[in-house]
Amino acid sequence: MPVFKITIAYDGTDFVGWQRQADGASIQGLIEDALRPLNGDRDVTVVGAGRTDAGVHALAQVASFSLERAVASDVLVRAVNARLPPAVRVLSAAEAPATFHARFDALAKTYRYRIWNARVANPFERRYVWHVIGPLDVDAMAAAARMLEGRHDFAAFQATGGDAQTTERAISASVVSRSSVERRLVLYEVTAGGFLRHMVRAIVGTLVEIGRGQRNAQAMADVLASRDRARAGRTAPPAGLFLVGVAYRDSLAADS
Amino acid sequence: MPVFKITIAYDGTDFVGWQRQADGASIQGLIEDALRPLNGDRDVTVVGAGRTDAGVHALAQVASFSLERAVASDVLVRAVNARLPPAVRVLSAAEAPATFHARFDALAKTYRYRIWNARVANPFERRYVWHVIGPLDVDAMAAAARMLEGRHDFAAFQATGGDAQTTERAISASVVSRSSVERRLVLYEVTAGGFLRHMVRAIVGTLVEIGRGQRNAQAMADVLASRDRARAGRTAPPAGLFLVGVAYRDSLAADS
Repeated sequence: MPVFKITIAYDGTDFVGWQRQADGASIQGLIEDALRPLNGDRDVTVVGAGRTDAGVHALAQVASFSLERAVASDVLVRAVNARLPPAVRVLSAAEAPATFHARFDALAKTYRYRIWNARVANPFERRYVWHVIGPLDVDAMAAAARMLEGRHDFAAFQATGGDAQTTERAISASVVSRSSVERRLVLYEVTAGGFLRHMVRAIVGTLVEIGRGQRNAQAMADVLASRDRARAGRTAPPAGLFLVGVAYRDSLAADS
Repeated sequence: MPVFKITIAYDGTDFVGWQRQADGASIQGLIEDALRPLNGDRDVTVVGAGRTDAGVHALAQVASFSLERAVASDVLVRAVNARLPPAVRVLSAAEAPATFHARFDALAKTYRYRIWNARVANPFERRYVWHVIGPLDVDAMAAAARMLEGRHDFAAFQATGGDAQTTERAISASVVSRSSVERRLVLYEVTAGGFLRHMVRAIVGTLVEIGRGQRNAQAMADVLASRDRARAGRTAPPAGLFLVGVAYRDSLAADS
């Protein structure tokens, strides 16, 4: 039973999220269905590194699965893409060690949140940003974002109903910047070993309140310390969120 | 009757094109309908600088119309955008001289065609590019594109059924390049006083055949000289085409 690692990009707008659900098209479900014919028409279970929510996108989600027999990587990529909708593309595939597990082996994941900060929305970005009208103090947002770096209890940024056993997480980078290429684009990039449910979007909701001057940057530390979800900002909309990449040990990183 | 000049961006994917038609949503129709309440509920006729086809986009289409009474530019922008779908946005508006006509006064229009040149399609670009698999000789395409600069009879690049009185046009710039930011993106940018129906897309179809090595660059001059549509390449798909901007005399250029 060879094990495969694939990298996937998707526009999450029209899907119920990564995870297979009773109703609606999920990325996991689409890929599992597309892999079936390569597996002698038997079910395939695909594990994703990050379980992105409905409307959230991925530039390079990583997933693992096993098939009954070996398939050349380029054949696999072509065959699966031929069965997927254009909004979901397998970028690459490689055979992985037999024990490889896309979620358990992930060392870190990076998410990016994109804010379109202008008076008028951009029709070409409307599925991929949160449109925030009015000036944003990006320096204050950047200072607040940096306060989250390190190991903390992020209970204040967990969705109600989140079921994590511990709410402690370690953020290795938490950076707000204005895009140098497009000044109307404000970006938040965050890397951590793991995230709580809706954590990035709750952080972004809080950052935008700080950017608008409704709170000062120091408020971020207070929200974090409170461990109280009611103290954080509202959850930012899913459209702006991208899973940018997943890091593995070097020996698991190879892709075709 | 004050006359207005507006600049509009739109994702043309889901529309029948600029021009109002019996069936389906057109950009012109949507804007005319959105302007009606600002005109005492009377019909408004909107003239666009370029009549983009179904599926073609605009970064900065320009249109003109008159209203029965003056409206502040920022009020106009907000009111119209509130009634338009998110795929269409008025970027700016300004009162123009009483004789201003977006099409007749246009000195030049610039179109950009975007080609995604990679093995795997990009889910985020799928509405905005032509996906061309396999290597493209961009130098050959660039050499061929340059042969079109100047005043020529472009009959070979006119859609059958085109009804232009003359097929002579003057191209001031015709440039193919690989994006320096994203090497998988090949761009064609062309500026002319006017274009024939499907002219840019017929040129791009021919350029791609040259890029693939199916013809050499010199073939472009032969196709042009033939004035025979059957000699040019197939019409490239609309998704890759953008109306980038429209040039006017300085005195007509001001926008709010």
